[in-house]
Parts: sequence; C-alpha cells; structure tokens
Amino acid sequence: MSTNDDDLQPILNNIKIGDTVSVVLNNNSIISGRYMPRYESSERDHMVIKLPNGYNVGIILKKIKSIKVSSFTIETEKLSKNTLYNSSSLLSQDENDNDLSQISDLPKIVIISTGGTIASKIDYRTGGVTSVLSAKDLYTSIPELSLYASIDTEILFNEFSENIGPMQWHLIANKIIEKVNSGNYDGIIISHGTDTMSYTAAALSFALQDLPIPVIMVGAQRSSDRPSSDASSNLIASVIFATQLDYSGVFVAMHGSISDEEIYCHIGTRIRKNHTSKRDAFKSIDISPIAVVQDDRIEIKKIPSNIILHKTKNSNKINKEFNIISKTKFDDRVFLLKYYPGLDPILIENVQKLGYKVIIIEGTGLGHINRNCFSYLKEAIASGMLVFMTSQCIWGRTNLNVYDTGRDLQKIGVISLSNMLSETAMVKAMWLLANYNDLDYIRNKMQENISNEITFITPIVE
Amino acid sequence: MSTNDDDLQPILNNIKIGDTVSVVLNNNSIISGRYMPRYESSERDHMVIKLPNGYNVGIILKKIKSIKVSSFTIETEKLSKNTLYNSSSLLSQDENDNDLSQISDLPKIVIISTGGTIASKIDYRTGGVTSVLSAKDLYTSIPELSLYASIDTEILFNEFSENIGPMQWHLIANKIIEKVNSGNYDGIIISHGTDTMSYTAAALSFALQDLPIPVIMVGAQRSSDRPSSDASSNLIASVIFATQLDYSGVFVAMHGSISDEEIYCHIGTRIRKNHTSKRDAFKSIDISPIAVVQDDRIEIKKIPSNIILHKTKNSNKINKEFNIISKTKFDDRVFLLKYYPGLDPILIENVQKLGYKVIIIEGTGLGHINRNCFSYLKEAIASGMLVFMTSQCIWGRTNLNVYDTGRDLQKIGVISLSNMLSETAMVKAMWLLANYNDLDYIRNKMQENISNEITFITPIVE
Repeated sequence: MSTNDDDLQPILNNIKIGDTVSVVLNNNSIISGRYMPRYESSERDHMVIKLPNGYNVGIILKKIKSIKVSSFTIETEKLSKNTLYNSSSLLSQDENDNDLSQISDLPKIVIISTGGTIASKIDYRTGGVTSVLSAKDLYTSIPELSLYASIDTEILFNEFSENIGPMQWHLIANKIIEKVNSGNYDGIIISHGTDTMSYTAAALSFALQDLPIPVIMVGAQRSSDRPSSDASSNLIASVIFATQLDYSGVFVAMHGSISDEEIYCHIGTRIRKNHTSKRDAFKSIDISPIAVVQDDRIEIKKIPSNIILHKTKNSNKINKEFNIISKTKFDDRVFLLKYYPGLDPILIENVQKLGYKVIIIEGTGLGHINRNCFSYLKEAIASGMLVFMTSQCIWGRTNLNVYDTGRDLQKIGVISLSNMLSETAMVKAMWLLANYNDLDYIRNKMQENISNEITFITPIVE
Repeated sequence: MSTNDDDLQPILNNIKIGDTVSVVLNNNSIISGRYMPRYESSERDHMVIKLPNGYNVGIILKKIKSIKVSSFTIETEKLSKNTLYNSSSLLSQDENDNDLSQISDLPKIVIISTGGTIASKIDYRTGGVTSVLSAKDLYTSIPELSLYASIDTEILFNEFSENIGPMQWHLIANKIIEKVNSGNYDGIIISHGTDTMSYTAAALSFALQDLPIPVIMVGAQRSSDRPSSDASSNLIASVIFATQLDYSGVFVAMHGSISDEEIYCHIGTRIRKNHTSKRDAFKSIDISPIAVVQDDRIEIKKIPSNIILHKTKNSNKINKEFNIISKTKFDDRVFLLKYYPGLDPILIENVQKLGYKVIIIEGTGLGHINRNCFSYLKEAIASGMLVFMTSQCIWGRTNLNVYDTGRDLQKIGVISLSNMLSETAMVKAMWLLANYNDLDYIRNKMQENISNEITFITPIVE
C-alpha cells in the first residue's frame, strides 16, 4: 500500500521531534532513527531522520508505506554530543524562553547569539539554514551544560559572519557592556560565525579593555546536525572557560585538534581561521592558547611573560556591580592592502582619493613592497594618511631595519607593526580612528601593545 | 702604541680574505678569527672578522694596535657550512669565471642568480648588502657541491624579490628556456629572494609546462655570513634535487625544519612563505613536500594520486636536445582583493574603472564576502570582468555550495577556485590573460588543474 503526502501529514503532526520512528518504505526496507525537524520554509514533501550513526537522511513522503513511532531507544548520549537541536523546541523558541536557571549557586553566564554555523541547521533538501538558540535548546540537547552554569541566552542578531562588520562589532560590544554592568554574570559567551570571528574578537579586544569577566567567543565549523559537528563540544568548553578561567578579556574557544579531545582558549587579537573546513581551523599565531578543555576539565597554561592578562574581578559573587565605560565605535576608513607582485601602485592614489585615512599594508617577508610603490606612499603620507606595515607571512614579525627596502620605507614614514596580524591591525586602526582625533596619538597607539596584539615586546636577536 | 687608519691600510691590503688573523686592540685584548670582506661602498675605517663561533664582528681601525696574520688554522669545515663567501673572490667575480667543471661525467647544472638574501652579505656597519654569485665562490666555499654536479653559473639580474614581478618572471622564464634548449644541462637552479619566491615559482610553473628537466628555486632566510644561515645547506640540497630528482617541473628547495637536518622540495604552485624570519618558513599547502634531502641524501616521497608530475627526459645524457616553446608573458591587469569586514565595495567599481580584467577575491572561510559587495561584483562581471574566489584561510578549499552566501555569489557569476592559493590564482590569471584572448577560455582554464595548483581534484565528502 502506497501513501501520499496528505495521508502522512496527520501522522507527522503527531510525531514529536526527537521521537524514535521506524519508517517502512514502499520497497519494504525499513529506516529507523530519530525524527528531526524540517526547515520551516522548505517544501513539506519529505521528513528527516537522524540515523543511529549520527547521519541525517531525508525521505520523500511519497516513498513511505508506513511510519511507526516507537519508544525512545536510540543512543541519546551520542546524539546529544553531536547536535544542539534534537529537542522539540527547535522551531518556535524565543528569547524569553530562558527561565531554566534552576541551580542558584552555579556561576551565571549569558550566551549571546549573533548567528553563524553554530546556531544553524542544514535542511537536507534545500540546503537552507535556520538559526535559533535558546536556553531550552541548550539544556535539552546538551544536559552537561547545567553542570557548569546557570545560563541565560539572548539572540542579538542572526547573521552569517561574512556580513558582520564595524556596525555589528559596535552592537555586540554595547550588548556585552550592558550584560557586564548588570552585574548578573560571571562570564559572557558570544556565539558567532567562524568566517570573521577573529576580526570580531580583535574588535571586542580593543573596544572592551576594562572587562572584569571573561568574554568567550565560540563558533562551529560544522553545523550542529552533522555527525562531525563541533558545535556541542565547543559550546561546552566555552561555558567552562566562561566560568572557570580566572582571566578577564576576550577569548575564542574552538577545537584544537581534529579529534573531539581538546578545545583551546585563544587570545582574541592573536587568532586566525587557517582552514576553510577543518574543526581545528583556528590557530593562535606566534603564541600558544592560554587554556585547554579536555574531558570537560580546564587546564590553564602558564602565561608567558610577553602576554598580559588581568585577573577576573568577580571572585566575590555577591554585590559585583560594574560600570565599564568603553569606546565601541569603529571607523571603516581603513584600507587593508595585500601587496602582490604586479600591483599597480596607482591603487594607493585611488585609496587616498576615496577618503581613506589609514592603509595597513600586508607586505612580503619582513615587511617589503616593490619600490615602485614608494613615491605613492610618500604622497599618501604627505597628505595626512597613516601607513602601517604588516606581513602576509602571518607568522613572525615585520622588521624594517634589515634590508634597504625596509629602511627606505621607514624614511618615507611607513611604520612597522612587529608581529601584529594584518587583520588585527586593520581592526585596531578602525577602532582608534573612530575614538581618537589626533593622528599622532593614533600613530603612537598603533605601535603600542594594548591587548596582546604585539607579542614581540622586546627586540629579538635572531 | 696606537695606529691610525692610514697605517693599517697597507697591512689590510696584504691580508687575503679568508686569512686567519689575530688583532691586538689598544686595550691589549686580542680578537682572532678569519678576515672577512668589507662591503665595497662602505667606509674604510673598519675591518670585519669572523669569530670561531661563526659570528662576525666589525672592528674600528682606530682601536687596533697591531694585526698578526697567522696560518690557516680555524675550523674551516664549520665556517664553510655557514658561509658562501669566505673565499678571496668575493668582490670581483664575473659570470665568465665559471670554468670549474672539472669532472666531466657528473650531471651538469646551471645556477641562475636573480638576487636576494642567498646571494647577499651584510656589512655590519652600514647594513648595506652586496650580491655576487659565481662558480668560483661556490666551489671555494662549498666544496661538497663538486661531488654532485658540474656547475655553471650566471647572474641574470640582482634584485631583492619584493622588486620582482611579471616582467622579471618573463626574463627568468626565457633564460630557463634558453638553458634548457642548449641541451647542456640536467637541471637548473634559480636562486631568488624568499619574499616573493612562491609567486615566481607559480609563474614559472604556468609558463614552463613542458620542461624536460627539474628547475629548482632556492633561497635563504638568513644571509650567508650569519652563523645561522641556511644559504649553504639549501644550495647543496638544491643541487641534489636538480641532479637526482627524477621529475621535471618547477620546485622550491628550502629548509623543512628549524634544524639543518632536512631540506624539502616543494611543488611550485603550492608553496607559501609562512614566517618572516625562520629558516623553515616555507610550507607546502594542503600537500606534503615531494622529496627531502637529509644528510646530503635525497628521499623521493610517494607521490599521491592527486599530484601530477612528469618524469625527466634527460635519462640519456648524450644528444639531449630540447626545443621547448612556452608562453612566458604576464599581464598585470589582475587585482588580488583580500576581503575584510568594513571593506567599502566601491573599491570594486574603482578596480573596474582602472581597467583591470580579473579580480581574485581572497574571501573568508569557504569563500564568502559581505553581501553589500554583490551588486558591485554583478556590475563588474556584466562589464566583462572575471571574478574568482579563493580563501584567506590558506589551507582548505573554497566551496560556494554550502551556504546561501556562496550560492548567491555563484548566481552572480563568481567562480570558486577550490584550494588554489590566492597568490597562485593571481599569477595564473596574469599568465592566462597575457597569452590567451578568449575570456571563456580563460574562465575555463582558471578552473582546470594545470600544474597542481588545484589538488582537491574530486569533491570531498566532509
């Protein structure tokens, strides 16, 4: 007996998301697994089942002979490790649904969602993505979280991070200030798409220099309904960092290896997404991560002398009232120029004419570019622009004293930024430009270590 | 008794570069070491001595009481490992001085010098750099070379590699063709500054697709008169690769680890300088090096199936006459745009107006940029430009099928380049643009693997 869509819809309406079902197909083969939510806007001619091996399959309703809803038997532990959204609450959460802070003596944190893969779910037919994050989702799908903290959540906005820029950095920073000053939280988690998470982490590091508590950014390289997802393990670790790290500041919690074993805590200004898809894509550059979560236990590393961290100010959990005042604006008149052979230096003139105030050059090696750019840079600097040099090598520091090219660049007025990442330098310049008027001050501040963006503090003998 | 400069000059004129000297200072302390050349244009008020520990010191002549020239006793082996230029020939070589091919049954190679650190020497007072490379220098300072090959040398030009671009790629490619077609050589070595060596390696990989012999690019991260120099060991390895690698094509020979132990042979299109100063700065991206020299012995690795290499055609060393015909032009109307949050998309319009034909975007993650760029890209593509997507993650491949952003970019006409490095993509576009007129052909060729620039040949299930 073959069914049609209309026959099945009443049945589907009676199955709860998360129920274990056995689906008999027209060819009499049977598929068993957990009933998964379907992307709301997708067509209604299929259902999605999570198999015991963790993979999801979409089944066209037309091919289904019958559906049996059985008791809850499949390996819940395994699934909960791999998905945030196996609860029935997936499609209809709102941010008021965050009254699950049952255990009052636990540290209290807030998770602020901004979108991205960690808060998304693939629809296997359309490829479309939805993004919802609420306390109920978290508690239902990752019961371990309640061991570590009492958690509030808030959806600030819902953007894939390629669409996040200076305006959103401003919003996130202000939201963090609001949460910090409420005095309610021991730590704050920002869930964020991974594409530009390092840029946002740098932005928050400069905007929020007087944080009394840790702000942990967290993302996922694989969406939460994929068996290889890192969403759940990264989030658990971020909660541990937010509640047990005794340093304040802005950090990034992401997988440290291709296994599920280790989640690293990186300093916000020294992090880079170095792989398009691997779970351990994020790397601390020129330094090591400051802490690691392994088997749900935190290990805080010895902090080397060239890293400056401040202890949290929340040891007395009662009466902690903060009034941090931060500069959260960003000015986008900063151009990040990656040098490459054959670059027409007329572009520098163009950037100048477009009204940019700062150029961050990503030079070659120790900080070099073709000498045919020199006269254009000289002109740009004479017109009042600031020009800084970083390296496209990523690791290591610029040094304009070694070769003639570097010395000539210095004579022109180009300023070396040591081992500041080009991306971090760009963000720092945007922040300084928005919050200070004096170009001399900005020039000096760019060269000064504010938030561990320069870790070669003293000259290195090589 | 104190001397003055004029007293010492006659003595200095009689000391040969490389002689061991004991210098008695006015304070009666004694400095012994090997007499080193002084940079020709520098002031003549000092002398340079290489100490037994490998370091060079400059001594002001005014501080010298006497100089004793002793017999040649310091550890020559150690020094020869660390410097190319301990011979008396440093300052007056010319390229005709290459008649040292004593042993006729050895493979024959030519080393073509283009400048850079490997061919340079620091003057410890001025910081100025000179660059000379001749057969006599090599044989005198690295006697091991004569074990592996009979070597000719030629100085093509003398540039630090930040000044090398499309015009120089053309010159180098044509010189290689001349040398290959002479039939005289089993391998060719190009010594080159490290800053843009990967760009040049990619350029030669596209320009010289029908090479019958290996072309090995080699450089040094530390100049040859520094104790930590990698010049000598890299050059020895490059000679071994040039004579014993049984694959033709363009490769890069550089340190593989911070020790002197291993020199790697990298594929020319998949290499990146990933540290500003370390000796093991160069990394093969998404693949492993194809061969390694350790203790002067070559080990050729198993070549994975996604790498395509051709065997050399020089097994019969007599009567090998080649007539390779290659396309060696490059057109610089290619813009490499590193995306960053806050980028004003008006820049895309500007690049279009400046007459560029191709934009290579270095997007975030799997190949994304802010949606505020979309209309500008659409306009650029409608005007006849080609727009390609790579990733600033460096490792991994772009994939415009996973997220909405990617699918939208594809609809606009942006083309994903898989795991082609952005720098390699830029060079490839410059090469295609100069040698082919048909934009459709160029668009297709960009997506086709020509010289191992794309190694994710088949779709990967992640």
